[in-house]
Amino acid sequence: MNPPDASRSELSSVLDHLAAGRLAALDRLFQLLALPSISTDPAYHPACIAAAEWCAKALREIGFEARVEPTQGKPMVVGHWRAPGGGSPLRVLFYGHYDVQPPDPLDEWTAPPFEPRLVEDQGSGEMIVARGASDDKGQVMTFIEACRSWLAVHGRLPVDVTVLLEGEEESGSPSLPSFLENHGEELKAELCLVCDTGQWDEDTPAITAFLRGLAFCEVTVTGPSRDLHSGLYGGPARNPIHVLSGLLAELHDATGRVSLPGFYEDVATPPPAQLAQWRALGFDVAAFLGSVGLSTPAGEAGLSVLEQLWSRPTAEVNGIFGGYTGPGTKTVIPARATAKLSFRLVPNQVPRKILDGLHRFIAERLPPDCGASFAGEGGSPAVGFDISSPAFQAAARALEQEWGKAPLIVGCGASIPIVESFRSRLGLDSLLVGFALDDDRIHAPNEKYNVKSFTKGARSWARILSELGAIDAHART
Amino acid sequence: MNPPDASRSELSSVLDHLAAGRLAALDRLFQLLALPSISTDPAYHPACIAAAEWCAKALREIGFEARVEPTQGKPMVVGHWRAPGGGSPLRVLFYGHYDVQPPDPLDEWTAPPFEPRLVEDQGSGEMIVARGASDDKGQVMTFIEACRSWLAVHGRLPVDVTVLLEGEEESGSPSLPSFLENHGEELKAELCLVCDTGQWDEDTPAITAFLRGLAFCEVTVTGPSRDLHSGLYGGPARNPIHVLSGLLAELHDATGRVSLPGFYEDVATPPPAQLAQWRALGFDVAAFLGSVGLSTPAGEAGLSVLEQLWSRPTAEVNGIFGGYTGPGTKTVIPARATAKLSFRLVPNQVPRKILDGLHRFIAERLPPDCGASFAGEGGSPAVGFDISSPAFQAAARALEQEWGKAPLIVGCGASIPIVESFRSRLGLDSLLVGFALDDDRIHAPNEKYNVKSFTKGARSWARILSELGAIDAHART
Repeated sequence: MNPPDASRSELSSVLDHLAAGRLAALDRLFQLLALPSISTDPAYHPACIAAAEWCAKALREIGFEARVEPTQGKPMVVGHWRAPGGGSPLRVLFYGHYDVQPPDPLDEWTAPPFEPRLVEDQGSGEMIVARGASDDKGQVMTFIEACRSWLAVHGRLPVDVTVLLEGEEESGSPSLPSFLENHGEELKAELCLVCDTGQWDEDTPAITAFLRGLAFCEVTVTGPSRDLHSGLYGGPARNPIHVLSGLLAELHDATGRVSLPGFYEDVATPPPAQLAQWRALGFDVAAFLGSVGLSTPAGEAGLSVLEQLWSRPTAEVNGIFGGYTGPGTKTVIPARATAKLSFRLVPNQVPRKILDGLHRFIAERLPPDCGASFAGEGGSPAVGFDISSPAFQAAARALEQEWGKAPLIVGCGASIPIVESFRSRLGLDSLLVGFALDDDRIHAPNEKYNVKSFTKGARSWARILSELGAIDAHART
Repeated sequence: MNPPDASRSELSSVLDHLAAGRLAALDRLFQLLALPSISTDPAYHPACIAAAEWCAKALREIGFEARVEPTQGKPMVVGHWRAPGGGSPLRVLFYGHYDVQPPDPLDEWTAPPFEPRLVEDQGSGEMIVARGASDDKGQVMTFIEACRSWLAVHGRLPVDVTVLLEGEEESGSPSLPSFLENHGEELKAELCLVCDTGQWDEDTPAITAFLRGLAFCEVTVTGPSRDLHSGLYGGPARNPIHVLSGLLAELHDATGRVSLPGFYEDVATPPPAQLAQWRALGFDVAAFLGSVGLSTPAGEAGLSVLEQLWSRPTAEVNGIFGGYTGPGTKTVIPARATAKLSFRLVPNQVPRKILDGLHRFIAERLPPDCGASFAGEGGSPAVGFDISSPAFQAAARALEQEWGKAPLIVGCGASIPIVESFRSRLGLDSLLVGFALDDDRIHAPNEKYNVKSFTKGARSWARILSELGAIDAHART
């Protein structure tokens, strides 16, 4: 059922205001994109602070009470809008992040990653190109722009809103758990809204009801006490790059399954009905792989691509280095070699248990004279959502109004650790609505966000806020 | 038989002069060590030029005609001393190199690599610590200091000497072949002297009669057309680091033999007598491996360490890189991964054939959607020497006089491509005498050269020059 006519007319003036302010909204997003807020690299700490300050200021400008709250790492941005007299039917907590991934390899960008620009593309139309354009600054601003127009036109939002913007999402959210512990009361809400996911395709919205978890660590294999001349020692001296390569080669068996002890112990097979729904989506594997230069699905033999992405755990090497990596030749047997590993997890898998399995796996295979050390370990479990809740249904209605078709209920292979934290620490369910596209090149050179994603994203949030404000009315009708 | 008494007395005044000038000689070496002449890295080209100029000036100072001769890469230093009236019994060509290996990993040096210094060590006595101290600037200067004292005391050398100092030994000597072609007449000699090898131990000199060859290349495995988010693509997307690791893991079989097709086709087993001689050396495997933090010989099963180093080819990964290698976590599936490979070769193996085998090996194993490209390929065959020649015997006598025991006739696992070039292009045999020690940390952080190696090295060359000058006299007596 739809909200009453009054709400509809209220909403259309908000949508008109968004349309009229389109260029100014882009300009604001560009200001945020110009700040290189790379959380994983300490050199960019000042830019992270600047991005947090910018976001707090943007919230204050539109009528929120907002501040930058220090943590042991990057600060949190916290903003509140409350209906006078406590008249809101619902309170939501909007979550996003202002930090971004490192832009390397830098030489593959066609322009500097922190000098945002509009690029006309035959397929995508007008695109915003910059690191963070899609993940997550562009997405965050769709929500803030929706709030801006609601407040500008009506001086109020349909629901009470708390905004929480994190600055460590791309580096494992180390400060978040204690922040939630200490600010639980302030962040209290009925529902969390997260804008860090994607659409099904450029014309079809999606709500993400399943997210893979993550476990990660860096392993260093050591051998000789120093780098050796490969002529003087080659043969009898153990080479740590060979040892590490051998370990990585054994990480998967011949069928693509991960070889760590106990890795699949807690993994459930999705119910047949769910698998059938995914199959019915008509997912275009050739297009999905083809857009990134691939044609043959890898991974576990016998499982479809969607089944792998939405219901199966993985092991990946995200980076490797050892020995001489500069230009030219250096005939060295290095003292050590390092790999950065990460595991995508599905519900019930426990990150610590997976990493313990990795430790055992390596210990059992290390040859004489070699050691292994582990650093930077962390992770978060996978999560799933209740798709029958009124809020979920309200968001689905709003998206259908904006996009002209019902949103698809999908899974996502990536992790958003905050979603698990909101559930476990604040008892909050999260509604994941986002407007990113598969070809947005997030975490990669030339990241982009379609202008269409940005403008229709803001309109979608304007509608979702309206529908959420009407939930009680629905319950009464 | 020994040279006549006149020669002996001539020699002792040269040795006295060397002893008196010990500190000034160290000072000159330090000047050369302060120049960061890293040939493999284009950023250090000016320092290479400076090192070449310094060497030419040093030769002119002691009485050589010397110049810096440009090539397409780093220049050659060429110097000549000729007896007036063509009275020398012999002409020798001395070869060394003024370029050095890159110093990384820089943070493992206890002091800057190009700020040479004297360090007192309990085991080694006084040591010269700097990149290039042992390989090869210290060794080159033992010869030049010997010539300096001969010329200072007697105004002549016992034999005609041409000095050729190369600046690309550490980066594959690309300019050398054409230089030898174009300057063959000028470089004509009866014998080549090379000072780029080591002693048996700190009290026992050695002449190296066997050198492994080298083939090298960089292989890059490509997969997706760009770096991918490991959550959004992990599972169905092929990871080039996994593919490269798998290839490297298969490079050796379970017995440590190299798996490339045809790799051992041209490898001969040393004659039983030679193997017996090596066994009789009483090589201390525990000490050799222990000094670099190892205890268990790796490599081919069933072969001794010396047999591996002096008579067996190897395959090594000298460097590897791919994906995210900065601080922290980046959950990426990279578009490519690269390994720097080198192969140590024994006589009869042909570098090009080995690299062709590598290409086939990789082509046969590449999974769908992956490519492989090869860069920086090069190499040189292994070589062996005639140990019955009068010059070889003369050098052996000189070394025995200086060190009080006969030099051991040994092999060396490392390559000196020039030696093969002198043989194939100039028809010249090379006499390899050097004073480096196994613990000199060449190609590694904190490279050193014992002061004892430097001073007794110069004395050894003074004696070798004397003995070479007496070869004809011997033949007559």
